[in-house]
Amino acid sequence: MRKLKHEEIPRLSTNTLAIATKHPVTVLVDNVRSLYNVGAIFRTSDAARIEHLVLAGITGTPNNRGLHKTALGAQDMVAWSYAKDGAVCAKGLKNKGYTIAALEITTSPMLTTDVTRSMFPLCLVVGNELVGVHDDLIALADVALEIPLYGAKQSLNVAVAYGIAIFDIVRAYRQGAGLPVRPDDIPAPTPPPRR
Amino acid sequence: MRKLKHEEIPRLSTNTLAIATKHPVTVLVDNVRSLYNVGAIFRTSDAARIEHLVLAGITGTPNNRGLHKTALGAQDMVAWSYAKDGAVCAKGLKNKGYTIAALEITTSPMLTTDVTRSMFPLCLVVGNELVGVHDDLIALADVALEIPLYGAKQSLNVAVAYGIAIFDIVRAYRQGAGLPVRPDDIPAPTPPPRR
Repeated sequence: MRKLKHEEIPRLSTNTLAIATKHPVTVLVDNVRSLYNVGAIFRTSDAARIEHLVLAGITGTPNNRGLHKTALGAQDMVAWSYAKDGAVCAKGLKNKGYTIAALEITTSPMLTTDVTRSMFPLCLVVGNELVGVHDDLIALADVALEIPLYGAKQSLNVAVAYGIAIFDIVRAYRQGAGLPVRPDDIPAPTPPPRR
Repeated sequence: MRKLKHEEIPRLSTNTLAIATKHPVTVLVDNVRSLYNVGAIFRTSDAARIEHLVLAGITGTPNNRGLHKTALGAQDMVAWSYAKDGAVCAKGLKNKGYTIAALEITTSPMLTTDVTRSMFPLCLVVGNELVGVHDDLIALADVALEIPLYGAKQSLNVAVAYGIAIFDIVRAYRQGAGLPVRPDDIPAPTPPPRR
């Protein structure tokens, strides 16, 4: 086997992505302090093809060029908005029928791999690097999702935890909706020209 | 529900972790440039309880304090070593019966979720942020693992991709070995004292 060249890797064009069906997941990034983390979250959000990213509280937005370094262009691919108060935003989504799912270790744990089809549309809430998801948002949450941790430190970087959770959630959605794991609307790679 | 307090979250003590059974996965981090990424990889490796982390080529080690900022102590929890040449290290592991699995987009793709029990012990290879896994290591690899990407950018931050892959791999191992998803050797949280 060999590595695919950059131009061989199947991908959506920006125009096709704009009209492609998104996974019915909105992500609420509440009070995340590090622009590096927000940039990485943008990049992961493009790859997971979520419908919308809400940046709330102190979370930086693409207006701050500091996050472009880790977003690497994904800030232009993912629909986003800013909300001053994450809880107000979550309430609005809840009223629209979204399941509010906090990525947090709580008294009522559910694994990210146990998300079911009935939980969509879903709003995944990720919180601050130090204190996690704010209590206001925990109070609003329908479920709390967690990643099984086997070590001594018992926490993950927020961008890494988000990556694990969102890919589990997207997998659950596609499985429930009878969609193949691999995207079926991205053109297959073309073999390189013979020399 | 409510968030668990820090002291309520079940975790292994450093001493118990040292003698706990690890997941039979060695991770080879080859030529990763960013100390932020290496630190996050340490943190994820503790959480995934892998047996060993090999830092190869230009990848920074815990001797460089720059990675402590994102490793947050996990550099003291995960067994690690440095290898000048990642390919030599991978050859050695291959001779010991490890399946060499490159996290890379190749002509022979397999999803991280399709890892099976017969593939353990497994060496997961992650590569450089810009050029990916080196061709020398692709040539040695038994399989190439990939994460299904649905977006326009078609790549993930290396620490995020590693997080998604290693948790899929650990899940596959535990499922194959008949182990529960949640760690069964970490004491349950004690309820907070009544006031």
